[in-house]
Amino acid sequence: MMKLYDYLPSGNGYKVRLLLSQLGHRFTLIERDIAKGETRTPEFLAINPNGRIPVLELDDGRRLSESDAILFYLAEATPFLPAERFGRADVLRWMFFEQYSHEPYIAVARAWLHVFTGPRVEPERLREKMEGGYQALDVMERHLAERRFFVAERYTIADIALYAYTHVAHEGDFHLGRYPHVRTWLARVASQPGHVPITQREFD
Amino acid sequence: MMKLYDYLPSGNGYKVRLLLSQLGHRFTLIERDIAKGETRTPEFLAINPNGRIPVLELDDGRRLSESDAILFYLAEATPFLPAERFGRADVLRWMFFEQYSHEPYIAVARAWLHVFTGPRVEPERLREKMEGGYQALDVMERHLAERRFFVAERYTIADIALYAYTHVAHEGDFHLGRYPHVRTWLARVASQPGHVPITQREFD
Repeated sequence: MMKLYDYLPSGNGYKVRLLLSQLGHRFTLIERDIAKGETRTPEFLAINPNGRIPVLELDDGRRLSESDAILFYLAEATPFLPAERFGRADVLRWMFFEQYSHEPYIAVARAWLHVFTGPRVEPERLREKMEGGYQALDVMERHLAERRFFVAERYTIADIALYAYTHVAHEGDFHLGRYPHVRTWLARVASQPGHVPITQREFD
Repeated sequence: MMKLYDYLPSGNGYKVRLLLSQLGHRFTLIERDIAKGETRTPEFLAINPNGRIPVLELDDGRRLSESDAILFYLAEATPFLPAERFGRADVLRWMFFEQYSHEPYIAVARAWLHVFTGPRVEPERLREKMEGGYQALDVMERHLAERRFFVAERYTIADIALYAYTHVAHEGDFHLGRYPHVRTWLARVASQPGHVPITQREFD
């Protein structure tokens, strides 16, 4: 059975758990607590030299890291990824947008304010995170104003990648009041068959 | 003919110019100067709502942004991307590593010290960029110690993505003295057929 090295509060890990669940794959969840440094031990660095979850271990022992690369691997030849060349690249466009222009702001603000609440947060740094996060939400709102999903008018891994941290953005003190299209899209994603919440540990 | 909206000093743009050149594609280069705000004008935001180069415009007018998504689009069904499913995902794994754990440190330090040299750089911010950049180089060095290229022992878009900012890391004040495997790999990439330097404007 596949193994998933993961940390439950992580949106990056949640992306993979959600897709695995929607694809009906069984897997063993192996939790590693980032807050306790469990992704920086020599044992874990042998699994992922970059010291990050999620890591998917296949039946044959090969391992894959980077949440959105794992999504792509799992989604190939399924309805979660377009078969057409431009559509596949457009899914990747939104996943790179997510990792470069969305996650470093919204997920980091949430981590500071909600997950790892020990260290003092510098107001200037938090202000930059809020500004970058709202810019990403602006781009999403504009795109969703005329579309039901991010790519090809159907639910794909681009939606899963962007849903993961957008649906918990309030935990990073983001307010979605002026983003009606984003809110409607969040509800649309949450209503897809096989949807599971971020905190769910059991997958049967 | 394809159009590439780009800014010559950009490593992200260079990735696409390099692959287009190595694939033998002709294209029209349309330069937009980031330093003059030319990627934040209403005209450019209509081309890419996220206000970033590079953007590739296909013959039929469809547009694709995010450098690594463009690489993937162009490389499909060519020797620059493995045909095998795990290999493709492993290429993406290194491209997401590049955009999340490498570019935000090495490219940003280079931008501050070499490209946009006007504003004063805060020493504490620069120190964080150096630390993150060296962590990324550590991961690369370890991986390359036993390999000629990042994936499948041949030159792919994973190498192009990581080469773009690594080969100009010295412009961000990074020293590669203790990275012999990275340096050998840089020379290996630069010796590939059809290689062009980052500053090249004409492609014939």
